[in-house]
Amino acid sequence: MSELERILVPPGKKGHVSVAHLSRYWYVACLSSELGSRPIARTVLGTPMALFRIDGRAAALLDRCAHRNLPLSQGRVTSDGFLTCRYHGWQYDGSGLCRLVPGLLDRTSDRERRVLSFPVREQQGLVWVYASADAEPDREPFALPLTSEPGYATVLRRVEAHATLHAVLENALDVPHTGYLHRGLFRGGGKHSITAVVRRSADRVETEYLGEPRPSGVAARLLSPRGGPVQHWDRFILPSVAQVEYRLGDDAHFLVTSACTPVTDFRTRLFAVVSFRTRIPARLVKPVLEPIALRIFGQDAAILRAQSRNIRRFGGEQFMSTELDLMGPHIWRLLRHAERGEVPPSQKIDEQRVTFMA
Amino acid sequence: MSELERILVPPGKKGHVSVAHLSRYWYVACLSSELGSRPIARTVLGTPMALFRIDGRAAALLDRCAHRNLPLSQGRVTSDGFLTCRYHGWQYDGSGLCRLVPGLLDRTSDRERRVLSFPVREQQGLVWVYASADAEPDREPFALPLTSEPGYATVLRRVEAHATLHAVLENALDVPHTGYLHRGLFRGGGKHSITAVVRRSADRVETEYLGEPRPSGVAARLLSPRGGPVQHWDRFILPSVAQVEYRLGDDAHFLVTSACTPVTDFRTRLFAVVSFRTRIPARLVKPVLEPIALRIFGQDAAILRAQSRNIRRFGGEQFMSTELDLMGPHIWRLLRHAERGEVPPSQKIDEQRVTFMA
Amino acid sequence: MSELERILVPPGKKGHVSVAHLSRYWYVACLSSELGSRPIARTVLGTPMALFRIDGRAAALLDRCAHRNLPLSQGRVTSDGFLTCRYHGWQYDGSGLCRLVPGLLDRTSDRERRVLSFPVREQQGLVWVYASADAEPDREPFALPLTSEPGYATVLRRVEAHATLHAVLENALDVPHTGYLHRGLFRGGGKHSITAVVRRSADRVETEYLGEPRPSGVAARLLSPRGGPVQHWDRFILPSVAQVEYRLGDDAHFLVTSACTPVTDFRTRLFAVVSFRTRIPARLVKPVLEPIALRIFGQDAAILRAQSRNIRRFGGEQFMSTELDLMGPHIWRLLRHAERGEVPPSQKIDEQRVTFMA
Repeated sequence: MSELERILVPPGKKGHVSVAHLSRYWYVACLSSELGSRPIARTVLGTPMALFRIDGRAAALLDRCAHRNLPLSQGRVTSDGFLTCRYHGWQYDGSGLCRLVPGLLDRTSDRERRVLSFPVREQQGLVWVYASADAEPDREPFALPLTSEPGYATVLRRVEAHATLHAVLENALDVPHTGYLHRGLFRGGGKHSITAVVRRSADRVETEYLGEPRPSGVAARLLSPRGGPVQHWDRFILPSVAQVEYRLGDDAHFLVTSACTPVTDFRTRLFAVVSFRTRIPARLVKPVLEPIALRIFGQDAAILRAQSRNIRRFGGEQFMSTELDLMGPHIWRLLRHAERGEVPPSQKIDEQRVTFMA
Repeated sequence: MSELERILVPPGKKGHVSVAHLSRYWYVACLSSELGSRPIARTVLGTPMALFRIDGRAAALLDRCAHRNLPLSQGRVTSDGFLTCRYHGWQYDGSGLCRLVPGLLDRTSDRERRVLSFPVREQQGLVWVYASADAEPDREPFALPLTSEPGYATVLRRVEAHATLHAVLENALDVPHTGYLHRGLFRGGGKHSITAVVRRSADRVETEYLGEPRPSGVAARLLSPRGGPVQHWDRFILPSVAQVEYRLGDDAHFLVTSACTPVTDFRTRLFAVVSFRTRIPARLVKPVLEPIALRIFGQDAAILRAQSRNIRRFGGEQFMSTELDLMGPHIWRLLRHAERGEVPPSQKIDEQRVTFMA
Repeated sequence: MSELERILVPPGKKGHVSVAHLSRYWYVACLSSELGSRPIARTVLGTPMALFRIDGRAAALLDRCAHRNLPLSQGRVTSDGFLTCRYHGWQYDGSGLCRLVPGLLDRTSDRERRVLSFPVREQQGLVWVYASADAEPDREPFALPLTSEPGYATVLRRVEAHATLHAVLENALDVPHTGYLHRGLFRGGGKHSITAVVRRSADRVETEYLGEPRPSGVAARLLSPRGGPVQHWDRFILPSVAQVEYRLGDDAHFLVTSACTPVTDFRTRLFAVVSFRTRIPARLVKPVLEPIALRIFGQDAAILRAQSRNIRRFGGEQFMSTELDLMGPHIWRLLRHAERGEVPPSQKIDEQRVTFMA
């Protein structure tokens, strides 16, 4: 192989791509509001699922009729609450058991006809599925904090990213790019020395930023008119939660929790829940912050798509990190350990400090 | 491999798909009316062919010039009846022999320049090709019955299906889905007990339905105003003919013969020939039946496409049959035997009875 | 495998395709006029490159930031002449060395951060790149003849072909197809006996045509009103130059040099430089010749695309040559030798004669 051939091989032939499949975890399949009386199709961790409601309760089946493999999500829900295949009308209950084969008299092998089902929880406006079929989850889905806290307002947004789960998580929790890619929107200049304290434990990694000035953007000035100390934490929590928390003096408190769903290896869906408390009423804050947030999301989505396409074009990643990559490498290590079912080397909190300019 | 990985593998990596390649058989390449003075391209059993006419006689060559591999179907037919490549003008006769290389003086290796040719028969408005090149067919193409019978009218339709030959054949000869997918169009309700008699022999499988009521749809009421016994047979005949026959008392006789052509593994073309005799004049029957038939074809085409996509998404089929699947499994067994050139286990007719509700 | 399976296998599984990767050579990446103050993306021999200018000088880097693999061609050039990644703002110089990581205080591993760079030469309005990264070229790019010769006019055209480099070169230097595909435009009839003298040496093959009549097309009559001897040479020069030279008596001299760039295996870009001297002023010749030339290029592009698609559909080439294929097989042999770094069997000029009708 020549030098260039080593670099340029077709995707899938070579090279590491930061994709981990954590199947014994919960992911958001859809918003509660998306799941009405008709079944819908959602793919989670590469698995096509048919979601539907039985007497109001959400259920998730493998999206393939046991008989002739039609997608069950293209069927309908009967008045007595069974999911029906559109081809021959086989009817399934929420556990995936086939309860009716139209026309069939011989019922002796009824119990053999079934499709895989996935555990489902519906809470706080989100429908979560457990990515392992017919399994007994040993934990519950991530509970969104502050969503019902008095004085807090909450905004929920869904964002599509054409990138791996890891790339999305790293991007969501990466400070250095904000001063460059999002310059002017909420950070930039590189004139302040900041110390980051990175704390790792069994299922998460958190970075606290010390000495961070009040963000220089328009929005920050509006939200924290009196200034005061800025507190800022970025957190990753297994398997796929990215959390950014800001306290601007006593004026404002922001918590952005992004529950990320790996749809396929190179496609990730974010359910971003923004909870905040400010001096200014929430109804005045939203119209100011929303366009800024959407612009940031849009810039990040474009970056992630360009990154993902280039990685596939080159047949794999070839990343080089510096100490400014505070979160990405740690996130990858946690994902890999969790995929293998390994306990990370140390359970105690491990702390590390990095100083940089922002 | 995890449970889901076993289920969800990329197409081609795993899993059975009911595709058989029966190359020593005849298939319809096109309608006679489609093949005029210009060559046309048709793919049969995955083989690209150039079809053209020499002095009115249809011929089929592998669609690749021996010289620089241009598609011969993009060339033209000379006034003296040779198929000419558009690049350098090489001329071929109907047997695939190159008869002229423009400019070439040395003719010593003339007989070495040729492309593969396929046996062709043109009959009853259809152009049939034998799917093995340079072969001597040991049988003739399927002769359509009733097309020139006095008192019978004939309608010919071409339908494209994005599905395997097997899926198309099973769909065409499957009764249970008609009461569900096509409900209201010609069958439905599930209130009648019907006995199906399945008869298998060396090259075919036939099901006769006993006790079938007059179809409840609008069309049936029109065609068989006086009622009377309903006789109904579904037949599969190797390699790719699906036939549905109805006799409604003395009033009406319908025979729908679908000669199916496997274009590629997941694409099948149907040439459906409907021959019928009714009390009402054919010119009055056609405008009533045509929209119903087209709607049924449309519903089936949508089902087949959805099934095919899901099978490929899951990397293979995982079918579960019941005794209501009267034809599909037998069709598959016949296709597999024929592909391997095996004589099926028994030459005598084997009969089996199933009772169900329709 | 059946006969047809042997013929029809998916691309890449089988069969020879005339693709050679000559990486230790120069290719045209773009026109000088295409490369301004913003970086551009060009793929050469399958390698994605970011081209940009530093103080006016052209540079080419592998199009992948060392940090998170974004395409550098999507970045911008700073006022002090560094190519900046759009994600985190890493800055690179023309040799690929990373000169700035925004925010980073620790500079100890600065020299480890770099991307591959490609030698660049800019001459005669073209930007050439050497297809091996970080290499020392042992030769210079091909110098276009006649472009600054007094009395000569020059026209430069870029043409895109969906075909292999070899197919494009063969097409550009193939006489027999011109009388058929381009009939009426500049040759045709097959009434003249012509002798071709093929001369091969270490890095090229040239064919001289003896006895060629004045081309019968409209253009030729215009350009060579007085007739006179026609001299015609076709040349291939490693790695990718196709040259066609015509002298029409004393009236006219034409030299068409096509510097071909293999973009990917099945895509080739031609930079065609036409230099000519005629009795009629160049400003009158251009409007007559240009539409003819564009029509010829268009016909060839359509042929090449059809050929390329068919070759891929059949999973490889199956060419059959005659003695009229004067150049193609020799070009392929030279490409293969050069790819392997072999000296061709004989260094001396080897001459061969073929007579044909044109």
